[in-house]
Amino acid sequence: DVTVNKMQYNHKSSEWITLNVGGKLFTTTRTTLVTRDPESMLAKMFQYPDRWSNTTDKNGAYLFDRSPEYFEPLLDFLRHGKLILNPNINPQGILEEATFYGLTSAAEEAEKLLKDQQMQIYSEPLT
Amino acid sequence: DVTVNKMQYNHKSSEWITLNVGGKLFTTTRTTLVTRDPESMLAKMFQYPDRWSNTTDKNGAYLFDRSPEYFEPLLDFLRHGKLILNPNINPQGILEEATFYGLTSAAEEAEKLLKDQQMQIYSEPLT
Amino acid sequence: DVTVNKMQYNHKSSEWITLNVGGKLFTTTRTTLVTRDPESMLAKMFQYPDRWSNTTDKNGAYLFDRSPEYFEPLLDFLRHGKLILNPNINPQGILEEATFYGLTSAAEEAEKLLKDQQMQIYSEPLT
Amino acid sequence: DVTVNKMQYNHKSSEWITLNVGGKLFTTTRTTLVTRDPESMLAKMFQYPDRWSNTTDKNGAYLFDRSPEYFEPLLDFLRHGKLILNPNINPQGILEEATFYGLTSAAEEAEKLLKDQQMQIYSEPLT
Amino acid sequence: DVTVNKMQYNHKSSEWITLNVGGKLFTTTRTTLVTRDPESMLAKMFQYPDRWSNTTDKNGAYLFDRSPEYFEPLLDFLRHGKLILNPNINPQGILEEATFYGLTSAAEEAEKLLKDQQMQIYSEPLT
Repeated sequence: DVTVNKMQYNHKSSEWITLNVGGKLFTTTRTTLVTRDPESMLAKMFQYPDRWSNTTDKNGAYLFDRSPEYFEPLLDFLRHGKLILNPNINPQGILEEATFYGLTSAAEEAEKLLKDQQMQIYSEPLT
Repeated sequence: DVTVNKMQYNHKSSEWITLNVGGKLFTTTRTTLVTRDPESMLAKMFQYPDRWSNTTDKNGAYLFDRSPEYFEPLLDFLRHGKLILNPNINPQGILEEATFYGLTSAAEEAEKLLKDQQMQIYSEPLT
Repeated sequence: DVTVNKMQYNHKSSEWITLNVGGKLFTTTRTTLVTRDPESMLAKMFQYPDRWSNTTDKNGAYLFDRSPEYFEPLLDFLRHGKLILNPNINPQGILEEATFYGLTSAAEEAEKLLKDQQMQIYSEPLT
Repeated sequence: DVTVNKMQYNHKSSEWITLNVGGKLFTTTRTTLVTRDPESMLAKMFQYPDRWSNTTDKNGAYLFDRSPEYFEPLLDFLRHGKLILNPNINPQGILEEATFYGLTSAAEEAEKLLKDQQMQIYSEPLT
Repeated sequence: DVTVNKMQYNHKSSEWITLNVGGKLFTTTRTTLVTRDPESMLAKMFQYPDRWSNTTDKNGAYLFDRSPEYFEPLLDFLRHGKLILNPNINPQGILEEATFYGLTSAAEEAEKLLKDQQMQIYSEPLT
């Protein structure tokens, strides 16, 4: 069963990591950070920790001087491969963060959502 | 009185459990996790803890490398059997999590909400 | 002056209580929990604590295996007697929680808001 | 420079105070609480602390058995004198809290926003 | 590679700072606070700490008696230079905070968003 294996993998084999993004804590695994987009900056930071002097806070959480709110859908993207936004989230914020972390395909998804939104505005009836 | 019994049951007989989902803590009971959908992966994890090597954080909370935001309505679903979403929540996020945890009937509910939403969009007046 | 008395009463005479609802902490007073709807399950739990074996977490907060988000407007209701919802809150979630805690008049208010909302949908122009 | 003075004043001369409103912590200064609306109940509580037996939690935060969500814009009002609400906030909740704390001009602002909103609803096209 | 350098710079060379804005903690770097708008009050506070007696809480976080909610997009602005707001955020709140911290260009951006929003309201069809 594929799902069972995936779940066991996530919960057994992988190292748990806490990220402190702009003051908010996110718990995830090294596997999630390095697997989906191995060429991204974020993946490389956690694939080759020796080459980066990643800073951690006093509780051992990896520090990022970035937006926590717009990071959340990106971490979910790394978990399951889909970029899912609530209607009250500005895709431009996601695009900005995806670009920073070097998450190319997530950035493309965000750009597509942004364009869809702008087309929707232009196609609204004139008053 | 059925309600009294249910409340006493929840607050007396059951073991309290804390889940750490992506960094956010949820407090619930083992009864809630295993009763509503006993065939789900989530229920099995807490029915047969010996067969799973569930990882916990330093405070004993069970770790899940998943979205906290979209888990919340699913935990409420396990509590009372209804999938209730606020208008600013994307049902696609719920569908993704319900599928991960193997919550089949909640996933079906989410899929229905997602289709309703898309039909609403298609039935909007063309401009 | 009635307001002064009420404020003094709240801040002087009453015992402070912390509730842990699904993992989120709410601070209130025993007076608030037992006064507005004395026949409710919630009021009875805190009126006759000996008859209930209320469970508390390690910090002494009373544990409820329920939704924190939909509890918040109900606690405000117990504080001032009005059910006030933000537009992004689904009244169905409030109804579900009000029913669980046995808060009859709050449940009726939620049901009314739910019906108003559905009438609004049905009265929208067909496309 | 007025702004510099104001900032220095806030950050130098005034006593820092933490409020625990319904379980959520707010950090502010005594100056903010007593200056904007000196006749309000809230100002009086912090102007003449001896006359009130204000209760504090174990960390020294002043306890209020009230809504945290609707208090936030009121505290901002005390900071800069404007009542600014996000579109997803029900002005009725603000009105209720402003009335409780005796913040008369903030309550009037909230009432105005509430009326504007209701007029907007009534002026919508009938279907 | 410019992005790598920027990321290394943020995570290696700069001092990490925690801000306590109205009770909410934000983690950032001194570089972020002083670089984008060096003439702002906020930049000056962290450029010449000796001239300001900045107050810190017991954990060493710099205290600000201001709105946390409306500070968040401003901190992101200092990080990447764009003012990005979700649709449920009132630009007036951002304007108020940007003005307080002396962030002139962010204030101008907020004012532009505010005017766009008001024009949109005026151009809506009369009923």
